[in-house]
Amino acid sequence: MAQPHASAGQIIDAQPLGARLVDEKTVALFKAQDLEVMRLVLQAGKALPPHQVAGEITIHCIEGVLDVTLGGRSHVLRAGQMLFLTGGALHGVTAMEDASALVTIALKR
Amino acid sequence: MAQPHASAGQIIDAQPLGARLVDEKTVALFKAQDLEVMRLVLQAGKALPPHQVAGEITIHCIEGVLDVTLGGRSHVLRAGQMLFLTGGALHGVTAMEDASALVTIALKR
Repeated sequence: MAQPHASAGQIIDAQPLGARLVDEKTVALFKAQDLEVMRLVLQAGKALPPHQVAGEITIHCIEGVLDVTLGGRSHVLRAGQMLFLTGGALHGVTAMEDASALVTIALKR
Repeated sequence: MAQPHASAGQIIDAQPLGARLVDEKTVALFKAQDLEVMRLVLQAGKALPPHQVAGEITIHCIEGVLDVTLGGRSHVLRAGQMLFLTGGALHGVTAMEDASALVTIALKR
């Protein structure tokens, strides 16, 4: 469930979606002053084309397998693995299997 | 394994420790310009006394059960649940069961 304005002290569900994944979409979990967290949902074969985000990012794979291309290199990210990206890094994401990931962004103001 | 200076594009292991948890300690996974991520490890009954961190924080429970006290209220955090804390929020953490969590901090400069 989307919680775009989760307040401090609010419990946010970031558990694997499991069988529900196929019907889910990417959602913002919360956006604060310096941090934004979203749950990226990509069904197998779907991709985010190469793009840039101003702030530093972590991508934490919750379930499934993601391929993150970064600087021409491919990084396979499995459940429980995390990748750090510098601000402005051009990156693309492809789901090798149905996958969800927590994406944390350091917001630039 | 600690990776205090993980570089961009480096895969970081954030999987549950399982049976190894009892022998592990809290480690910094990486520290960048705007983001720091550590894996907090607390064995059952152990606690971090109330303290403050300048930047915004997320606490993402990976395994076990944590009790996070915040503004006099207790928040029980189970595996797969995340809590957002504003910068400067006085909070304490107690492990109700052997637990580990990813703690992401928006660094203040």
